[in-house]
Amino acid sequence: MHCYTKNCLSFIRYNPLRNSQAFHRPAYCSQKITTTEPSSPNVRTEIPGPKSRQLLKELDRIQNTGAVQFFADYDKSYGNYLVDVDDNCLLDLYTQIASIPIGYNHQSLIDAVKNEDNLSTFVNRPALGCYPPRDWITRLQTSLLAVAPPGLSEVQTMACGACSVEHAQKAMFIAFQRRKRGGAPPTQQELQSCKTNELPGTPNLSVLSFKNAFHGRTMGALALTHTKPMHKLDLPQPKWPIATFPMLKYPLEDNVRENQAEEKRCLEEVEDLIETWKKKSEPIVGIVIEPIQGEGGDNFASPQFFQGLQDICIKNDICFNLDEVQTGCGVTGLFWAHEHFNLKQPPDIVTFSKKMLTGGFFYRSEYRPQEAFRIFNTWIGDPSKVVLLEAVIKVIKRDNLLNRVSEIGNYLWPEVEKIQEKYPDLISRVRGLGITGAVDFPSPDERNKAISKLLSKGVNTGACGESSLRLRPTLTLQKQHVDIFLDRLNSVCQEMS
Amino acid sequence: MHCYTKNCLSFIRYNPLRNSQAFHRPAYCSQKITTTEPSSPNVRTEIPGPKSRQLLKELDRIQNTGAVQFFADYDKSYGNYLVDVDDNCLLDLYTQIASIPIGYNHQSLIDAVKNEDNLSTFVNRPALGCYPPRDWITRLQTSLLAVAPPGLSEVQTMACGACSVEHAQKAMFIAFQRRKRGGAPPTQQELQSCKTNELPGTPNLSVLSFKNAFHGRTMGALALTHTKPMHKLDLPQPKWPIATFPMLKYPLEDNVRENQAEEKRCLEEVEDLIETWKKKSEPIVGIVIEPIQGEGGDNFASPQFFQGLQDICIKNDICFNLDEVQTGCGVTGLFWAHEHFNLKQPPDIVTFSKKMLTGGFFYRSEYRPQEAFRIFNTWIGDPSKVVLLEAVIKVIKRDNLLNRVSEIGNYLWPEVEKIQEKYPDLISRVRGLGITGAVDFPSPDERNKAISKLLSKGVNTGACGESSLRLRPTLTLQKQHVDIFLDRLNSVCQEMS
Repeated sequence: MHCYTKNCLSFIRYNPLRNSQAFHRPAYCSQKITTTEPSSPNVRTEIPGPKSRQLLKELDRIQNTGAVQFFADYDKSYGNYLVDVDDNCLLDLYTQIASIPIGYNHQSLIDAVKNEDNLSTFVNRPALGCYPPRDWITRLQTSLLAVAPPGLSEVQTMACGACSVEHAQKAMFIAFQRRKRGGAPPTQQELQSCKTNELPGTPNLSVLSFKNAFHGRTMGALALTHTKPMHKLDLPQPKWPIATFPMLKYPLEDNVRENQAEEKRCLEEVEDLIETWKKKSEPIVGIVIEPIQGEGGDNFASPQFFQGLQDICIKNDICFNLDEVQTGCGVTGLFWAHEHFNLKQPPDIVTFSKKMLTGGFFYRSEYRPQEAFRIFNTWIGDPSKVVLLEAVIKVIKRDNLLNRVSEIGNYLWPEVEKIQEKYPDLISRVRGLGITGAVDFPSPDERNKAISKLLSKGVNTGACGESSLRLRPTLTLQKQHVDIFLDRLNSVCQEMS
Repeated sequence: MHCYTKNCLSFIRYNPLRNSQAFHRPAYCSQKITTTEPSSPNVRTEIPGPKSRQLLKELDRIQNTGAVQFFADYDKSYGNYLVDVDDNCLLDLYTQIASIPIGYNHQSLIDAVKNEDNLSTFVNRPALGCYPPRDWITRLQTSLLAVAPPGLSEVQTMACGACSVEHAQKAMFIAFQRRKRGGAPPTQQELQSCKTNELPGTPNLSVLSFKNAFHGRTMGALALTHTKPMHKLDLPQPKWPIATFPMLKYPLEDNVRENQAEEKRCLEEVEDLIETWKKKSEPIVGIVIEPIQGEGGDNFASPQFFQGLQDICIKNDICFNLDEVQTGCGVTGLFWAHEHFNLKQPPDIVTFSKKMLTGGFFYRSEYRPQEAFRIFNTWIGDPSKVVLLEAVIKVIKRDNLLNRVSEIGNYLWPEVEKIQEKYPDLISRVRGLGITGAVDFPSPDERNKAISKLLSKGVNTGACGESSLRLRPTLTLQKQHVDIFLDRLNSVCQEMS
């Protein structure tokens, strides 16, 4: 994986994308919404422009606006292009923090909202756990279950990524304690004490996470998150074990032995922590890990590393829980990133959100709670998001988007490497799989400058890690988009060196 | 409050509801969706019926179905009536765990979804904190800010109730530590240590909650929740202070002195806990409380109790955080339940979700984080839900629903009291404010039997607390609905006594 072969670029010569159905003209045109993609970005003002700045001032009376980049005009945006309120038209390679699957205003999504059959789903949000809609099973089958990770056939919907991680974590604790009881029911003392957060009903258990991991911002998810101080500062947290995520050296082919040693060391650390925390009587019930660390810096590890982790989980009878919130939905060229790992059995839990439009998690049946109301809340997801996901999955299949993602990745990253070769003092650690990946700059300041310069040239990208610039485009990214990015990145590097 | 005056029933004679616009015929009819409310329930099968049972079997292959009551046909449901897949037509007084504001398939919501101007909002879900839509400020002004609790003008959207409670809690911790630093920036040691959940960046702080409270099911929200064991069992939790929520004796007018003493005792307990936890070096940063405890048993306390709590918070310089997830959006006859409390200043934080269709929280400006990305996630809410909320608020104002809720409550609860007088061994502690309230049965079994019998007679209600039956109808509840409920409750009591 992510050693893209440089000899599979033949597709570009034949350019099957020319006949793609992804951006076919709609059968009927909406009055308001743009229905064609521009041929290139167009920047008219500084960004944020005057209109965005005015709106920023107004919004700042209502809430903190420190994270706002600009105000967007979603009616005018289309495909891979995001238009802001100052009419700046940007090639969007960050796409709402990696959460737009097939581009803005895709006709299939518009059709799904306009379809009378779906109307009551958008109007009446049910308490899904109590009164599911008539067509709920069919909906699950044509959406989530149609793309379930190999070997997993159970799924729980949730509203967002953090909730998915939280409830998946609860499933881990519940299964661990059930195994521990060996089939016996909980004691009266357990049932009573848990209501006031006391032993034994509220047990001392822990979850192992990794340095630089990001899993969300609610307490249970944030406990596993170890990225920026501003995500974590001042917030009480359980003090659970944290292992080192391998920090691979690039180019991979020149650092094979060193990287293997690094991964071996990390696996040993995991095993040590499991032993230590068992002795501390706060046993680890499972390992939560991203197949590719996103927010923490687009850190990759090898399939062998993940195989090793799974082996450790099997050996210790604990849960192997993969957080695919940012890596799922096809961005690596396979629907789930862990499909690249050639695991000996399915992961125990796979969480998702972002491009999937609904949160949730797949799980092996031993992680299904036996009792009602344990993994539960009022909404536990939203059927209207599943309607949209259904449309997304149809497009992914119809337009063969997974193959296209692989092909475009095989074109993109070697080209970025060429820029790295030209500017070795500026760009390093080029890494990517499919359309997801990043490059490093020498410092956070230089990374920020590069992002800002790219934006002023009409290309929207994102930051991650200490000094990485990440790409998170849609699955409909094509060669012409990549070429624009490469051109602008080249200019930026020239200006900065 | 909730001492409904028995002499304000004159509205029923004049029946302004006859001219109500709430259920006006739509301008155009959807092909699929029912557009009139039936005149009474109609139960054709046992519930769940054969079709629901078949679907239950199928869904059980995918996930735990222990909480599923029946499968619903949302196309056929309308107003206060929910139709199931076996064509049972039920008067719904539980309405998706209190989360349907103005009835099923309300024409205003259908219009909002069909409105071309809103289309791109349903299709493109933005990362609201980074790229808010052009009309976001206007949307906030015509929805959330139009119903902001008196004195509060800042708001943060979130996806659901638990996320709202979690992030509101984070705002409490952040503000507490900022005050403690007295304007100084965090130290390098704090910034570094928080990344691995260690002191001093991850401080020992606590939040005070109440017995029988319910605030959600993610770790930080669940830490404040003390209801059923199945919500809590096996899940690690911070061990934070828990005070007693007053358990009032009914009828209130016969227990004035006893109830005052109970509330005084509870307030003293809160003050004691604040002192104790200060000494333990895990200071309480704030109090989180429901204006009316919902899941925990529809427990009311007096305005004086909440005034006393706020005084304690002011005196100790800690946060007074009201969880209005189940009590907001007009169900008490005022938009927010705490408006009944005559507080000397606004609460510091008010969380919401359920009938508001979007989660979020209002807050006093000192609870606004000064830095970006602290109260943040990918979506932080969903503008398409705010579009629906905007329509709901227009209907609430146009149809004067808050007044109607007060009036219908003034009719409903005295009538339920009459049934209590007829069946004093079966029903006790009748309590309600507006359309939200409950009655107690002698045991959980009898409560469950009553709910089940009501369902078989076409009325859907819910359970709460140990042995309470709760009502959570829509804001469009009318006298004819109440009369059906009263008739069926009478029959059930007759059968059970």
